[in-house]
Amino acid sequence: MAETPASPFAVVLTVAYDGSRFSGFARQPETVTVQGSLESALATVLRQPADTVGAGRTDAGVHALGQVVSFDANGAEPDDASLRRSLNALVADGIVVHEVRRARAGFSARFDAVSREYRYRLVTGAVPPLFLAPVAWWVKGALDVDAMRHAAGSLVGEHDFRSFCVAESAEGKRTVRRVDSIEIFAEDQLGEECLVVRVVGNAFLHSMVRVIVGSLVEVGRGRRPAVWVAEALDACNRTAAGPTAPSRGLTLWRVDYPDEVWL
Amino acid sequence: MAETPASPFAVVLTVAYDGSRFSGFARQPETVTVQGSLESALATVLRQPADTVGAGRTDAGVHALGQVVSFDANGAEPDDASLRRSLNALVADGIVVHEVRRARAGFSARFDAVSREYRYRLVTGAVPPLFLAPVAWWVKGALDVDAMRHAAGSLVGEHDFRSFCVAESAEGKRTVRRVDSIEIFAEDQLGEECLVVRVVGNAFLHSMVRVIVGSLVEVGRGRRPAVWVAEALDACNRTAAGPTAPSRGLTLWRVDYPDEVWL
Repeated sequence: MAETPASPFAVVLTVAYDGSRFSGFARQPETVTVQGSLESALATVLRQPADTVGAGRTDAGVHALGQVVSFDANGAEPDDASLRRSLNALVADGIVVHEVRRARAGFSARFDAVSREYRYRLVTGAVPPLFLAPVAWWVKGALDVDAMRHAAGSLVGEHDFRSFCVAESAEGKRTVRRVDSIEIFAEDQLGEECLVVRVVGNAFLHSMVRVIVGSLVEVGRGRRPAVWVAEALDACNRTAAGPTAPSRGLTLWRVDYPDEVWL
Repeated sequence: MAETPASPFAVVLTVAYDGSRFSGFARQPETVTVQGSLESALATVLRQPADTVGAGRTDAGVHALGQVVSFDANGAEPDDASLRRSLNALVADGIVVHEVRRARAGFSARFDAVSREYRYRLVTGAVPPLFLAPVAWWVKGALDVDAMRHAAGSLVGEHDFRSFCVAESAEGKRTVRRVDSIEIFAEDQLGEECLVVRVVGNAFLHSMVRVIVGSLVEVGRGRRPAVWVAEALDACNRTAAGPTAPSRGLTLWRVDYPDEVWL
């Protein structure tokens, strides 16, 4: 958050992207990232550098439907509709800017977020996904969804999720997060059946949703009992939980903010 | 249809494919086609050539969810589940075999079909599709869906659809077909809004669904009145109808057969 905002408002973008085309969200030298492409397009349109903040630093391969990106307008007065049009013309293929809004000065897409929703798509059974292949994980065979739901219940609430994140990312850091809900439901998308794991919480650790899904799939496959997920949570150790599910199945679906931030 | 089937049954595959990866369904020398890839995989599995028939000869770029492909088993006795598994391992990326069934001897996926369903996806508005980009046509701006529905009504029934197919393909041929229904409805797919044009009929001429959709979009955009579609039909001349909608939006969704063909 800018301590002394140079502008009376922040510009807020709602952005979708196909994660398979980028080395993750966060800006990095020498690689194509979502933030890097957005900032380069913004610099062209606004004729000044834009220092953006994203609501979630998604990993390489992870998709977004409703990523939120904010920056201080810094004196620029862009017209929202023409900014969207210009950005969509300039950003890399695989990024689409859906909405341009304005929030109060000092707004941060990251720190002002009160709720984040991720969805993870699984395709089960003997036949691989076709149209869903770029956005789903194919788990051959059947999954015991009731057992997965039972296991997921033990993760809801405020817990130390140290077991469910990249170990190195958690060193010396606070790893308590609040998960509001985990729902698992079947859906027809593009004519193909899939199973969606919908996770809502205040904030997430590095790879947290993917380790949750990887662990739930261990239960769904019958390799572990449902209670094992609760034990893994209690262990506060990454090795206690299941594998990290592949990035392609994950989408940052939506980020929510308090009503009062919007101008 | 084989006049004297060498086998007591026909093998029937339900096949999905991503049309962007193939030069159409129909076998052609020197290019990658869906039928060519299926026949090559079948020859490997069955250790004899398979002469397949498809329910619809979809053009390059057109997708299928429920294409139906039949062939005479010709003495081979494949186990249906292992045939599906072997084919899915051997066919080109972008093809998935969903189902293997058996029909009475002499069955033809093409000539025994009683109903075919195609779906065409449109994305409207100022923001381009992202996840739907490979399977939808982006029509910038808004469409008047009521006017499109009104225009579509004049195409339902048995008519000479000469105006609504590739002109050269119709020369000297019977061009009467029966359209049972055209429905237009909004749908959320992969988190993106789209408009689906669902067309069901007994059989279709070359590019017929794409010319229907291209013409309905002319009406939806307000470039033509709804009644113009009925006039185009009456004209029996390709130049009277609208442009051919892009192939990427079209999917051969489903093909139906009489119950009695199945063993």
